[in-house]
Amino acid sequence: MKKTAWALALLLLIPIVAFGGDEAATVTSNKDAIALLQTNLNYVWTLVAACLVFFMQAGFAMVESGFTRAKSAVNIMMKNLMDFSMGSIAFWAIGFGLMFGTSGTGWFGTDGFFLSGWKGPDGDQWVLAFWMFQCVFAATAATIVSGAVAERTKFAGYLIYSVVVCAIIYPIFGSWAWGSLLNGSGWLEGMGFIDFAGSTVVHSIGGWAALAGAIVLGPRLGKYGKKGEVRAIPGHNIPMAAIGVFILWLGWFGFNPGSTTTGDSSIAMIFVTTNLSAAAGSICAMFASWLMFKKPDIGMSLNGALAGLVGITAGCANVSPISAIIIGAISGILVVFSVVTIDKMHIDDPVGAVSVHGVCGAWGTLAAGLFNMGGTNVKIITTQLVGIGAAFAWSFGTAFILFKLIDLTIGLRVSKEEEMMGLDISEHGAHAYNDFQTLN
Amino acid sequence: MKKTAWALALLLLIPIVAFGGDEAATVTSNKDAIALLQTNLNYVWTLVAACLVFFMQAGFAMVESGFTRAKSAVNIMMKNLMDFSMGSIAFWAIGFGLMFGTSGTGWFGTDGFFLSGWKGPDGDQWVLAFWMFQCVFAATAATIVSGAVAERTKFAGYLIYSVVVCAIIYPIFGSWAWGSLLNGSGWLEGMGFIDFAGSTVVHSIGGWAALAGAIVLGPRLGKYGKKGEVRAIPGHNIPMAAIGVFILWLGWFGFNPGSTTTGDSSIAMIFVTTNLSAAAGSICAMFASWLMFKKPDIGMSLNGALAGLVGITAGCANVSPISAIIIGAISGILVVFSVVTIDKMHIDDPVGAVSVHGVCGAWGTLAAGLFNMGGTNVKIITTQLVGIGAAFAWSFGTAFILFKLIDLTIGLRVSKEEEMMGLDISEHGAHAYNDFQTLN
Amino acid sequence: MKKTAWALALLLLIPIVAFGGDEAATVTSNKDAIALLQTNLNYVWTLVAACLVFFMQAGFAMVESGFTRAKSAVNIMMKNLMDFSMGSIAFWAIGFGLMFGTSGTGWFGTDGFFLSGWKGPDGDQWVLAFWMFQCVFAATAATIVSGAVAERTKFAGYLIYSVVVCAIIYPIFGSWAWGSLLNGSGWLEGMGFIDFAGSTVVHSIGGWAALAGAIVLGPRLGKYGKKGEVRAIPGHNIPMAAIGVFILWLGWFGFNPGSTTTGDSSIAMIFVTTNLSAAAGSICAMFASWLMFKKPDIGMSLNGALAGLVGITAGCANVSPISAIIIGAISGILVVFSVVTIDKMHIDDPVGAVSVHGVCGAWGTLAAGLFNMGGTNVKIITTQLVGIGAAFAWSFGTAFILFKLIDLTIGLRVSKEEEMMGLDISEHGAHAYNDFQTLN
Repeated sequence: MKKTAWALALLLLIPIVAFGGDEAATVTSNKDAIALLQTNLNYVWTLVAACLVFFMQAGFAMVESGFTRAKSAVNIMMKNLMDFSMGSIAFWAIGFGLMFGTSGTGWFGTDGFFLSGWKGPDGDQWVLAFWMFQCVFAATAATIVSGAVAERTKFAGYLIYSVVVCAIIYPIFGSWAWGSLLNGSGWLEGMGFIDFAGSTVVHSIGGWAALAGAIVLGPRLGKYGKKGEVRAIPGHNIPMAAIGVFILWLGWFGFNPGSTTTGDSSIAMIFVTTNLSAAAGSICAMFASWLMFKKPDIGMSLNGALAGLVGITAGCANVSPISAIIIGAISGILVVFSVVTIDKMHIDDPVGAVSVHGVCGAWGTLAAGLFNMGGTNVKIITTQLVGIGAAFAWSFGTAFILFKLIDLTIGLRVSKEEEMMGLDISEHGAHAYNDFQTLN
Repeated sequence: MKKTAWALALLLLIPIVAFGGDEAATVTSNKDAIALLQTNLNYVWTLVAACLVFFMQAGFAMVESGFTRAKSAVNIMMKNLMDFSMGSIAFWAIGFGLMFGTSGTGWFGTDGFFLSGWKGPDGDQWVLAFWMFQCVFAATAATIVSGAVAERTKFAGYLIYSVVVCAIIYPIFGSWAWGSLLNGSGWLEGMGFIDFAGSTVVHSIGGWAALAGAIVLGPRLGKYGKKGEVRAIPGHNIPMAAIGVFILWLGWFGFNPGSTTTGDSSIAMIFVTTNLSAAAGSICAMFASWLMFKKPDIGMSLNGALAGLVGITAGCANVSPISAIIIGAISGILVVFSVVTIDKMHIDDPVGAVSVHGVCGAWGTLAAGLFNMGGTNVKIITTQLVGIGAAFAWSFGTAFILFKLIDLTIGLRVSKEEEMMGLDISEHGAHAYNDFQTLN
Repeated sequence: MKKTAWALALLLLIPIVAFGGDEAATVTSNKDAIALLQTNLNYVWTLVAACLVFFMQAGFAMVESGFTRAKSAVNIMMKNLMDFSMGSIAFWAIGFGLMFGTSGTGWFGTDGFFLSGWKGPDGDQWVLAFWMFQCVFAATAATIVSGAVAERTKFAGYLIYSVVVCAIIYPIFGSWAWGSLLNGSGWLEGMGFIDFAGSTVVHSIGGWAALAGAIVLGPRLGKYGKKGEVRAIPGHNIPMAAIGVFILWLGWFGFNPGSTTTGDSSIAMIFVTTNLSAAAGSICAMFASWLMFKKPDIGMSLNGALAGLVGITAGCANVSPISAIIIGAISGILVVFSVVTIDKMHIDDPVGAVSVHGVCGAWGTLAAGLFNMGGTNVKIITTQLVGIGAAFAWSFGTAFILFKLIDLTIGLRVSKEEEMMGLDISEHGAHAYNDFQTLN
């Protein structure tokens, strides 16, 4: 019996040796290595997507500057540079912890400030990759406002606003909807709120803050005539604005599919829904403008593409490609009417930020419920409406107070003389286009 | 004996437990997981490459606008935006099915319209990733024409052309050469036609359609004098054109290596051949222009880079780096002579699109046969020539008919007054550079 | 007994069959497949990063052109195009072999010229991927000089300089610090020199060559008054410069994290340190300029971002995020003082290249030792100082000789008349902005 047992024991070693190879790989070690590889791929994908979203800063700068006057171009570049720079530091110090830190209440996180969740280079690095991706999102929310308050805001006041949005306003709302993506837990996501990549969390939050800023500041000099007539103040560099829109469209391929933070086949549908919605948005905005103004309008067409992108952001992962076309088409029409209406209300939003990001962000969030591939019902729609309403109340409310506080302390708006002269000279002592004969 | 058997049965469990870990991983499940991971990596790579190719739209817009006049800049941005937007919808509805759908004849596909090949989020997602990558290719083919017909084409007519190219002209030829990449089967690929990333399929198709458009439209007012002399109409923003070329070069790193649709080591050589050909193209075009015009010419040098990129597109995966330098060098010289020749023929191609994409696309397709690393022979060269000829016949022929039809119905060319005024004002009611003193 | 043995032998086959699956996968073959997959991911990541670094060429072109006059814009685009084109060919033929070829001495490599290390498409492709990534680095080093010698350098002389930098000056220093990344072995890396992504290897080498060029050339006409007063020559397109900085920031996400050439979690920290340093740099430069000039200066703020990026390049993988903020903050302040000081020394560096790349590159290399997460000591700091000193001696020395030789032979500087007219007309026979009324 002993011999038999030994012979069998030896036989048992055969598969171990055969499967083992050198360095003693086993099925289990292979399985772990496979899991690690998927994680590595997730790092690469998430951070490449973060690059694309980062690049949106350049896109926003170009759209805002292109749609406004030459005498404000330096100021706009400074604002966009500082949005991102100050936003990065503010989100590192405060915002990220409020948004994704552990939360006992569901209203904000209470740890993870100054990236304290990072355990050093020997620990898990995911918190850093995730921070990077979320940081570029936070800066996007801040930048949206820049366009609506362009050409009349004091630079110092703008800096304060920009820091507060990235440190507090955006992250707190973000924690309600997305906190559980790391260590938090938000009351809104607990209800089942659908906002995959941020039609509400990023765009409406930015858009409603933009509305508050535009209202508190009041319109640019000369924008509305004595009899209340609306005067167009055309942009100074339409090709720059157009290239900015292409860059934003590109960036959205990081914004939406990157929000999976996972490199797998699920990103494909998000690419397609994102692209089709943008395409439908620009086409429908063009035709809407053609009907309204008798000519296909470049500003509306460009904003239509952005409207389609904002509109699909919430539902990009849970609506079908054909639904994406419908969502984008409605976004494109909506943005045209919204821009005209807001102008008629004498709210001066030089680039249409409120319409593109606020209004279409709200529509997109509703649409994510309406066109949900898993079906829809009253509860889903109600939850979406609660989220939309909460975003408006929180963002418009806090931003309104913030802009008022800035106005009452260091001042929010430049003087009439400075505005006439242009912010480039008055705030920065510089011309944007020194070698050119400019008219304004 | 029973005891022995039980003891052995238990021993047999050791390797299973040792190898299995939790969730019962096996060699087979690991193998499947590895295959899935490669698939995931393919999704990430293909879609990142699609982003780069998408960005080429911005590059084309900048090159076209930079090389033409300030008074057409808004129109050019609209055309490029709509190329991509309408192209996306047209390729979704019709083009993709014609190009990659099941084909009984080898001449076009007959299913897959409206992305009907997609089985929903629980099925295989590859069709969506593949569609996205192919969609940006289709839009590229359409955009090439834009430059050749710039500054004189009715916007409405251009839109119709643009839809037809993306829905029909490009996809049908594409099905001949590339249909089998999904469900189709083309007669040209059946012969062994080599066109890895589309010197012919994308660039020559675009270039010959551009030639048809330029001929049907006729030259811009003032381009050729009464005695037939050629007058230069210089571009209005050379830095914009140059940045556009850098963006296109970047985009080609998606266009060529991305055409593997596989994330593996095979992309490395394609990067290198693509880059070296572009470098050689711009250097040789610069020296050629230096010899011809006594000064190194910026327009020719920029087009030389593009010529090198178009030239290597067919053979990027089957020629060596040193062959790539030769192919690019010849492309760079060819484009200079071609631009001058086409101008002498009084065909007004404002940006040199016919030379860059048509002529160098044909050369590159031939070169892919001549420099084939696996050797060449009469059959290979003959097949390449058949493909080159078929592309010319199909694209020039159908585009010529299409432009003529548009001309005879809604009209293809704007009036003299509108052309003098510039398409920005006449077609879109907008100035591109409102705050600048412009001269034309 | 026999029956028992057979029964057991059969039982032993169970796990083999169960684990084996089709095509005879084994634990070993799976292990190999996993290793191959990580390699594939490394290719994708490294080459995507190369794309981002390539795009920096566009960023440099925009920064340089935006910060100089309209009459030099064509020349600057040509220089940047040729930097990359000629640099690619020179680095392929000579530079790569000198930098990464086998070295018996530690001073330069002696094989691998003309990519001869590549064994064809059936062999290991890594040398091609690695070449591509290193090629875009070499071109970056060359391009840095372009800004410092702008608006007064003969184009032919510039081309010669550009080739020599990419073929010899940059690669030889590179072999000292990085040669062992492929087949080489450098004396400086042998000492333990820390320069992860090239604060010294790329940026200081470029910056000190730029200093040599600016000194040999002398200042632009009118830059310094008869009494030695410094006159500002403002840039002609600030938004272009600003977008260029955003593009460079984006490109640095390839430059620094891509230097891992490995797609894994280690890239996350590098993203974060890179981003935080850039943010701190731009903020601190803005406040420094605000204090010095009474207004927040756009040029300084933009250069501050670049200073932060250059400063973190050496230590991006071995300093903590909070250290990165300190390094960037100091870089941002340093660049302001350096620009002012160099200007007072009557060295005319139109874009601040010496300060951004030379000075902040040296600071960043020192900082990589000072803030090393594994601790620091006198030996580490000494080694860093040796590397900094060696870079200055080698690059300033060889570039000074090179520029002098060019000056003595074909000539380095254009005539006064040509400089007044602008290099665009005199060197290239072209206006950059034909349709605009320009002032200079």
